[in-house]
Amino acid sequence: MPSSPRQFSRSDAAALARQVQFGENGLVTAIAQDATSHEILMLAWMNLDALVQTLTTGRVCYWSRSRQKLWQKGEESGQYQYLRDIFLDCDGDAVLMRVDQVGVACHTGRKNCFFRQAQADSWQEIIPPLIDPASLYRKK
Amino acid sequence: MPSSPRQFSRSDAAALARQVQFGENGLVTAIAQDATSHEILMLAWMNLDALVQTLTTGRVCYWSRSRQKLWQKGEESGQYQYLRDIFLDCDGDAVLMRVDQVGVACHTGRKNCFFRQAQADSWQEIIPPLIDPASLYRKK
Repeated sequence: MPSSPRQFSRSDAAALARQVQFGENGLVTAIAQDATSHEILMLAWMNLDALVQTLTTGRVCYWSRSRQKLWQKGEESGQYQYLRDIFLDCDGDAVLMRVDQVGVACHTGRKNCFFRQAQADSWQEIIPPLIDPASLYRKK
Repeated sequence: MPSSPRQFSRSDAAALARQVQFGENGLVTAIAQDATSHEILMLAWMNLDALVQTLTTGRVCYWSRSRQKLWQKGEESGQYQYLRDIFLDCDGDAVLMRVDQVGVACHTGRKNCFFRQAQADSWQEIIPPLIDPASLYRKK
């Protein structure tokens, strides 16, 4: 684990979350950017609880729309994201996080999820998997 | 205008757009990243028409959820975004664009929209406006 992720007290986290404009579905979009390489790792969603948990623990937690539950990134795969910095956009309905990514961000075993590039008439895979995805979801 | 933004033929653009998983609302999230500095400029939305227009013209076009219409970035402000590269994520429901930003991306006159950083219990503005926002929307 990297040393000292950014963490906030429970009261500060609650105050920060109150200033965010969650949509009709109770969610905001959340972008994770690698704090070192500045590559975009992934885009996902947060509800209020996920944001507060992220802020208080320093480990990034999303809301899984498919599973309809809180999803601490890495809880199954071990590929945690540690919070370094978090920013809110002008409309207050999207957050950008700079994170330290353990291993890979993508469930396909790639460092980031945006591994398909538009080339002529198709999206071509330009990044190979670094980890066998089958091995990612065996460990707890 | 920067030289030669990335452009696709109409048939290639249509083929690329068909491979994107637009949500129930007909939209995908779109992240604009500065091609040179790698900073995240903004997050917005695209429907199929906006994506095809972006790909064919090389000028980024979004779908404005508030105005319910196509919104070519810069059409009112002159602050165009020229496409350099576009990537699709693993789920096919988010795109990442590397762009050349003319002037500023944010309607507040700041280079990017993520100008508020979490500090203790509030989001603090850490980037000053580069352009008076009142001047942005006078010119066509």
